[in-house]
Amino acid sequence: MSSPAAPVQPPPPRAVRFGVLGCADIARKISRAMLMLPPGAATIAAVGSRSDDKARRFISEIGFPAARVHGSYESLLEDPDVEAVYLPLPTSLHVPWATAVAARGKHLLLEKPTALCTAELDAILGACDASGVQFMDTTMWIHNPRTAKMREIVSDKDAFGDVRVINSMCSFRASEEFLKNDIRVKPDLDALGVLGDVGWYCIRSILWAVDYELPETVIAHRHPVKNQAGVLLACGATLYWADGKTANFNCSFLANLAFDVTVYGTNGTLHVTDLVIPYEESSAEFSVASKSSFVKPTIGWDPLPEKHVVTTDLPQEALMIQEFTRLVQNVRAGGRPEGKWPAITRKTQVVLDAVKASIDKGSEPVEVAS
Amino acid sequence: MSSPAAPVQPPPPRAVRFGVLGCADIARKISRAMLMLPPGAATIAAVGSRSDDKARRFISEIGFPAARVHGSYESLLEDPDVEAVYLPLPTSLHVPWATAVAARGKHLLLEKPTALCTAELDAILGACDASGVQFMDTTMWIHNPRTAKMREIVSDKDAFGDVRVINSMCSFRASEEFLKNDIRVKPDLDALGVLGDVGWYCIRSILWAVDYELPETVIAHRHPVKNQAGVLLACGATLYWADGKTANFNCSFLANLAFDVTVYGTNGTLHVTDLVIPYEESSAEFSVASKSSFVKPTIGWDPLPEKHVVTTDLPQEALMIQEFTRLVQNVRAGGRPEGKWPAITRKTQVVLDAVKASIDKGSEPVEVAS
Repeated sequence: MSSPAAPVQPPPPRAVRFGVLGCADIARKISRAMLMLPPGAATIAAVGSRSDDKARRFISEIGFPAARVHGSYESLLEDPDVEAVYLPLPTSLHVPWATAVAARGKHLLLEKPTALCTAELDAILGACDASGVQFMDTTMWIHNPRTAKMREIVSDKDAFGDVRVINSMCSFRASEEFLKNDIRVKPDLDALGVLGDVGWYCIRSILWAVDYELPETVIAHRHPVKNQAGVLLACGATLYWADGKTANFNCSFLANLAFDVTVYGTNGTLHVTDLVIPYEESSAEFSVASKSSFVKPTIGWDPLPEKHVVTTDLPQEALMIQEFTRLVQNVRAGGRPEGKWPAITRKTQVVLDAVKASIDKGSEPVEVAS
Repeated sequence: MSSPAAPVQPPPPRAVRFGVLGCADIARKISRAMLMLPPGAATIAAVGSRSDDKARRFISEIGFPAARVHGSYESLLEDPDVEAVYLPLPTSLHVPWATAVAARGKHLLLEKPTALCTAELDAILGACDASGVQFMDTTMWIHNPRTAKMREIVSDKDAFGDVRVINSMCSFRASEEFLKNDIRVKPDLDALGVLGDVGWYCIRSILWAVDYELPETVIAHRHPVKNQAGVLLACGATLYWADGKTANFNCSFLANLAFDVTVYGTNGTLHVTDLVIPYEESSAEFSVASKSSFVKPTIGWDPLPEKHVVTTDLPQEALMIQEFTRLVQNVRAGGRPEGKWPAITRKTQVVLDAVKASIDKGSEPVEVAS
């Protein structure tokens, strides 16, 4: 018998051709991640900057030598070869440029915080929706395989039970230079300050822990720290759900680097201390206690918490790009944009709005809009 | 040359002769700890119980067969051979019996929560003071050598900097039996419920982290969980200091076992996850990050947090008894009682009072009395 003909392999999908709008530092991490992906995933086709020189220098550094330079953002948006835009501009510029990206029919990978408020975000999401383009924010840790493993454990109604309390602290000790000059302390650029920066991760991690159920009420902690221009440098809040769950978070530019999330359930406890940026790229840990009890007479624990290690061939930012390009290629092939990502983004922004409102009202309780 | 005569060794001090007032479960842990100490430290001379039988059974179990039985608390207090009393009665009985202990000139090792409110505690401390007897509460983890090592690190103004945020969660998942019958859910016995039980440790650990500086204000979390009799089963609060430090705690009878304290400083971070009852008796861990920064472009941490392991020959409860007996022997030799321990107890109770007041006022801010 002759063997059957080898099945015809479909050609690998054409790589998604990105335009980068602005030469922010964080764009170097994104371009590095694209280089790690297999061919056929992502390439940087063009870089747009208000300065030709800056764009040229950026291109020479990032390993995509064929990328075109655009001396204006507008010019990049007109480039028909650009299929998707990675947009790391300051938050105050998101609405005009993100809606312009969508209006040109280009997919949008948008840096967080995605907008200054939910109304702004809705303008962006509405534009993406109207054009049928994929939207995703750049919360990288969501794409780490550790996060999926933790999700599995927290969702286990026997081993973990019901979530009751969540604590999150995301912080880093900003330099004097940062506190003077970084866009994240400038009211005209990133007016949400620390709340929009690492506070975004606190809120997202808390929502993640409760499978994106919105809290009912938030109350900001008193005495948030602001700079002279009124931009938040350190703040916190307590979140309340209808069923009695509570969460507490603190975010700060004024404390040692921390990316802690602890989830306390009726039967289990999960600790992770490097959620947002894992200690190392290739593997990430967390620890879980389940049905812990005492060695009598309360002289020890049994069972002890267990450490879990999740390895990954690709760092989380590369997995994020991979997921985004997969979705773009799906839309290119006639599919619909994935609605899960904008929905999660919006919930994060809605809670962030409520925290900001509570801060602005001197720590009054604020109901969370849906 | 003839060698000099060996110096005359002073005789070892006579063991402190304890009376145990009530046969609570926790007393078994204390008697076990006494047996671990070298001779000349502590012995149980007598046990007082409202039931002769219960006292006899208790004595047969604890390894002090020579201990006398007293069929009433009053009778134990009249026993001239009893030099110090360990008092694990329900909190509502502390004032009459603890003041009676002091009035008889006996030293007092008092179970926590020490009193239902600061006014009650002051009656007890006043009685101890008037009689010149040593007072100590039974917060055991304070005596673990790990705690001293952590203190050293948190106090390091360079490696740790200034404390900014503290999170504490102390909880265990109480059985149905506990939630029905334990003294800690009975309004007439331990009316402070979970706040007096594991909440005590949250508050103490937070005060410990700031070297016992009292907060200015506390605000209880909304929606504390109470049983039908109105006793707290789960609650929390945020604490505010004048210099902007904040702390958050949650305590619960309804979540998996947790004894977490995390201290966030300007330069350092400390994590401990088994503060109150270490996972194991002979060694205890914690982890410290100091001056953590990113591996560029934010793909890792450098330096990584470090794990510290502190070993101990004696478990923390034995070290607690050892410290208490040392102080009693010092008073016996003409010294004055050590004021550090009652001062720490009182601060814990003062903050606990404020949290309770805020709970009772529907989460209104409450100023902390000094």
